[in-house]
Amino acid sequence: MGAQASSEQVDEVVARLEEAGASAHVSHGRDATVIGAIGERELLATLPLEGFPGVEQVLPILKPYKLVSRELRRDATVIEARGRRIGDQYFGFIAGPCTVETREQTLETARVVHAEGVTMLRGGVFKPRTSPYAFQGLGAEGLEILAEARELTGLPVVTELMDPRDVEPVVEIADVIQIGARNMQNFNLLSEVGRAPKPVLLKRGPASSIEELLMAAEYVVKEGNTQVILCERGIKTFERSTRYTLDISAIPVLKHETHLPVIVDPSHAAGKRDLVLPLARAAVAAGADGIIVEVHPRPEEALCDGPQQIPAAEFADFAHEIRALASLLGKTIG
Amino acid sequence: MGAQASSEQVDEVVARLEEAGASAHVSHGRDATVIGAIGERELLATLPLEGFPGVEQVLPILKPYKLVSRELRRDATVIEARGRRIGDQYFGFIAGPCTVETREQTLETARVVHAEGVTMLRGGVFKPRTSPYAFQGLGAEGLEILAEARELTGLPVVTELMDPRDVEPVVEIADVIQIGARNMQNFNLLSEVGRAPKPVLLKRGPASSIEELLMAAEYVVKEGNTQVILCERGIKTFERSTRYTLDISAIPVLKHETHLPVIVDPSHAAGKRDLVLPLARAAVAAGADGIIVEVHPRPEEALCDGPQQIPAAEFADFAHEIRALASLLGKTIG
Amino acid sequence: MGAQASSEQVDEVVARLEEAGASAHVSHGRDATVIGAIGERELLATLPLEGFPGVEQVLPILKPYKLVSRELRRDATVIEARGRRIGDQYFGFIAGPCTVETREQTLETARVVHAEGVTMLRGGVFKPRTSPYAFQGLGAEGLEILAEARELTGLPVVTELMDPRDVEPVVEIADVIQIGARNMQNFNLLSEVGRAPKPVLLKRGPASSIEELLMAAEYVVKEGNTQVILCERGIKTFERSTRYTLDISAIPVLKHETHLPVIVDPSHAAGKRDLVLPLARAAVAAGADGIIVEVHPRPEEALCDGPQQIPAAEFADFAHEIRALASLLGKTIG
Amino acid sequence: MGAQASSEQVDEVVARLEEAGASAHVSHGRDATVIGAIGERELLATLPLEGFPGVEQVLPILKPYKLVSRELRRDATVIEARGRRIGDQYFGFIAGPCTVETREQTLETARVVHAEGVTMLRGGVFKPRTSPYAFQGLGAEGLEILAEARELTGLPVVTELMDPRDVEPVVEIADVIQIGARNMQNFNLLSEVGRAPKPVLLKRGPASSIEELLMAAEYVVKEGNTQVILCERGIKTFERSTRYTLDISAIPVLKHETHLPVIVDPSHAAGKRDLVLPLARAAVAAGADGIIVEVHPRPEEALCDGPQQIPAAEFADFAHEIRALASLLGKTIG
Repeated sequence: MGAQASSEQVDEVVARLEEAGASAHVSHGRDATVIGAIGERELLATLPLEGFPGVEQVLPILKPYKLVSRELRRDATVIEARGRRIGDQYFGFIAGPCTVETREQTLETARVVHAEGVTMLRGGVFKPRTSPYAFQGLGAEGLEILAEARELTGLPVVTELMDPRDVEPVVEIADVIQIGARNMQNFNLLSEVGRAPKPVLLKRGPASSIEELLMAAEYVVKEGNTQVILCERGIKTFERSTRYTLDISAIPVLKHETHLPVIVDPSHAAGKRDLVLPLARAAVAAGADGIIVEVHPRPEEALCDGPQQIPAAEFADFAHEIRALASLLGKTIG
Repeated sequence: MGAQASSEQVDEVVARLEEAGASAHVSHGRDATVIGAIGERELLATLPLEGFPGVEQVLPILKPYKLVSRELRRDATVIEARGRRIGDQYFGFIAGPCTVETREQTLETARVVHAEGVTMLRGGVFKPRTSPYAFQGLGAEGLEILAEARELTGLPVVTELMDPRDVEPVVEIADVIQIGARNMQNFNLLSEVGRAPKPVLLKRGPASSIEELLMAAEYVVKEGNTQVILCERGIKTFERSTRYTLDISAIPVLKHETHLPVIVDPSHAAGKRDLVLPLARAAVAAGADGIIVEVHPRPEEALCDGPQQIPAAEFADFAHEIRALASLLGKTIG
Repeated sequence: MGAQASSEQVDEVVARLEEAGASAHVSHGRDATVIGAIGERELLATLPLEGFPGVEQVLPILKPYKLVSRELRRDATVIEARGRRIGDQYFGFIAGPCTVETREQTLETARVVHAEGVTMLRGGVFKPRTSPYAFQGLGAEGLEILAEARELTGLPVVTELMDPRDVEPVVEIADVIQIGARNMQNFNLLSEVGRAPKPVLLKRGPASSIEELLMAAEYVVKEGNTQVILCERGIKTFERSTRYTLDISAIPVLKHETHLPVIVDPSHAAGKRDLVLPLARAAVAAGADGIIVEVHPRPEEALCDGPQQIPAAEFADFAHEIRALASLLGKTIG
Repeated sequence: MGAQASSEQVDEVVARLEEAGASAHVSHGRDATVIGAIGERELLATLPLEGFPGVEQVLPILKPYKLVSRELRRDATVIEARGRRIGDQYFGFIAGPCTVETREQTLETARVVHAEGVTMLRGGVFKPRTSPYAFQGLGAEGLEILAEARELTGLPVVTELMDPRDVEPVVEIADVIQIGARNMQNFNLLSEVGRAPKPVLLKRGPASSIEELLMAAEYVVKEGNTQVILCERGIKTFERSTRYTLDISAIPVLKHETHLPVIVDPSHAAGKRDLVLPLARAAVAAGADGIIVEVHPRPEEALCDGPQQIPAAEFADFAHEIRALASLLGKTIG
């Protein structure tokens, strides 16, 4: 309460807290009166205390998430798809084209990344594009190609879901459903995949805080789907030499806060091929449970994000470095 | 092209540009070779030039939007709903509850704001909330209450659409469809409202650039719906004394770039009631075509955003100041 | 304290607080133990409580500034220089060249802005430039020109001090000493001007929070100089259509937190001439105690910041609009 | 030039470019006229082209720095101080107290870090503190203690210079002069150390772009001192779970742009002890030429930045991990 708050104003806040089933402890200082409230966090979060006269600030002490928190569950969650694992000692190595453009490009890429021991295959068929004039993805047709690539390699496939109306076809084909950065706070979509029988790869929005990412995961887990992989992919800052600023600290912070696995997408953060390897190495060294990278046979012909895709011909060297580092850190890829 | 680029690499880029129907002009400097490309902007934007070997950077000179640009259409677009106008000399004064909580609260607020001469009534029934434990809105039931408030006051109603599966009921009741900040890049939703027969109020995402906002509007207009109102409501920055940082410069920048009307939501930017009036005044002075503010009979009981809602009892003073300033700037409210 | 904190760890923190003369109140919740500490804010701020085992977070409840705070002094501070005032009902209208380039350009600009009723004359002679190859200002020679412009117009002059070794000549000539944005946390320089017998115009750093700005002002006031004018001039954000993002909310926030006058520099925030007028109007409407703008007889020949300087020929219109708005808001310019 | 630019306006820009010794190439498109200018970058950077009528935007194609650029000098610069090296294959491992508090604390820390094979000793005696009420460092007295720690361990010492008036005593004792983040654009200070006979460790400002950091280094090198170490230590963003956001991408970007060595300060970026090791590992993996970390015998008693200092008792484990990773990446510590 501000220095000018009256004792009636203090009493009103206390009364409201007690009415809501919380207990309130009042301490009077010279410059402020502090009311400590103890109760259920979900309940306290919904009380509109800042709207009360005399209230200067409301400082939440407990975190607003619960089901995803490390406090609730000390052991790391391990996500499994077709026998491949992510979490705890298992390092998920996900690679593939940014976008499924053609059957040939997708199968060729799938073969290359499979040969280098990746554990999952990525590929977008519904593409969120900033410009309405850009290629929007193959849609349902692309899902068939992904299924064929899976048959060819045995790798589980990760693909993005953008629209609640596409839940059915995507859930049928995908082994892991990706929620893209721009949809991280599409709450209806989160609830939908919270009821799906497949793991979810949830990307952090470019302007979303770590706390907001955890709240988005809470939306999914609350519906019953506890199989959520979090993914850091860069945030918006003033720095212009990279597309986004990869928030490498998010990895240890998230590993401390939640039991869910945390992976990194260095391709979208960087926006430039030369940065993908150093950022991927940094992610492994910071303790990430996996990485997801984009590979293309001929990036200069890519319909989307060409500059950041690793040429297929250079992928063996890339994979070699990642394996060496993951091994030094005691991780198993497989 | 970088200083080390070979002449073969330069030729490859030129060849690709010409293949795509653009013309290419090469200038050789001591430290770089510059290739100027002239062609259709939609086409150039999709060429993956940054993926070519030897290319150091690609600098777009033309803006990527077209239909929404001031270059295409010099005259300001005026949006009309039930006889109320926004754009050009018409100042849109939109007010109402953050959320439709009950019939009583909504009708009471509607009466108060109507008495002070606002031109549209706002009220959310589908609420995007960071926490899955927070009140999510009344849904379809709330739409009925909004319709009743419209009947009572004659004011057109503005309400948010969050899910493409709710297009039908929202389009039926709403006079203006709001796309919230978190859905600014929900491209499928944008395309849906692009085919709706109602004006769209498109809020800027908290991490979206002005250019991205214009591209989102382009998604709507491309489908045929040219009735789009843009809304600045604060961006995410390092500053913590306000919920978001209201980007007041966005108003003159947008007015220069586009023919669409531009309004400001000072309530969400501020997050604190005391700041709403100074920010609303600043918006008018900066040249905004309108404001949208939240009002509640008893903010301390609000189920959502209590701290930033203007108490109904103080709304007359608020409206008085806005009218005086709009009038000084030559605007008509009505 | 975290959920796992032992009672010994709680006792250690309490002991340390009491040793430092503060009182400590312990509340035990199910998920956390909260220790409320009451004592002198300067003292509490220096205790390294976050370094203690078991401590999860430290949330300061009192603001860390004191001498500049509105709580200490309810009445607005009015700054005076040669009979011109800024603060409370007095609106400071400061204009002049970005940089003193030549005697002619400076005197010509001084004459123009004086004719339009500005209250102070600005002009830089020591220029902080991002590039070592850019014009660095005329130095001491420029101070003489400023003195001549003052003699000509009777206007007090504002000029920047960059180096503690230049305190003497600058204090001798300047009526108001400017501390630039890049030096906002040059603490030795702040202490120096804290001992100077002239008012200080302190610009907010582009990455400095409002709280940090107030702490910088506290450095000045602590040395005895209470004549400090705060200046918002834009912060660094992800938005690229303006050089900086003018934080318009800083004005009402600062007016609430401090008794010091708050002005706005729209020229540096915008970086573009067309934006200066709308941003200046927004500043007045938001409640600023003044503005500081750049004017040049021929901006296309300016040695510094040409794009944002108002052409002298357009200044009469500019001044007219500012006067009308300031008058509507009940401010006196003079 | 904008779509509305007249041919006179185009001619004026061309004339100004040619007058300045640059050559100008004009291309006419349907929606814009593009003028390509080729000339010396220092010269072009100072032309106020954006101030000319009809000019819509100025896009620099060449980088504004020169002496520090990789284009000028392909070979990596190696910095040496008392036989210890940083740059190319040499990894600089710098550790020590945040602040020299007492002789005992400093010597004890020096002994611990020396035993674990660090290559330089850090310790602040002039401390830039946000609050005027916080401990400001021991000043000259602290320099004596650092000299004693050097004698004891043989390690070169790194210490911060804040004020141009302290150049002499600092240059006399320090082996490497640190310029702190808040002084990165204190251009007079940069010029001073540009004339000093000691290497400079230049920290990136929390709101400074990579380009601005390189321009600051250019200020130092331009005066003749080519011995500059760049240091990434976190930038200001909206994320609040860490003090700053460590910009890990800055390492590969800087290594590509400049021949100067690039190190990382994970302690200040994190603000929390638990994050220092994962961030330090990420820095090594991203290709940094060194790290600088803070160590304290009893962090809970530290006068400054206690929460982020590594307890001396845990430093052996920390150093072990860093050595293993540096070795995997082919770096030599010594």
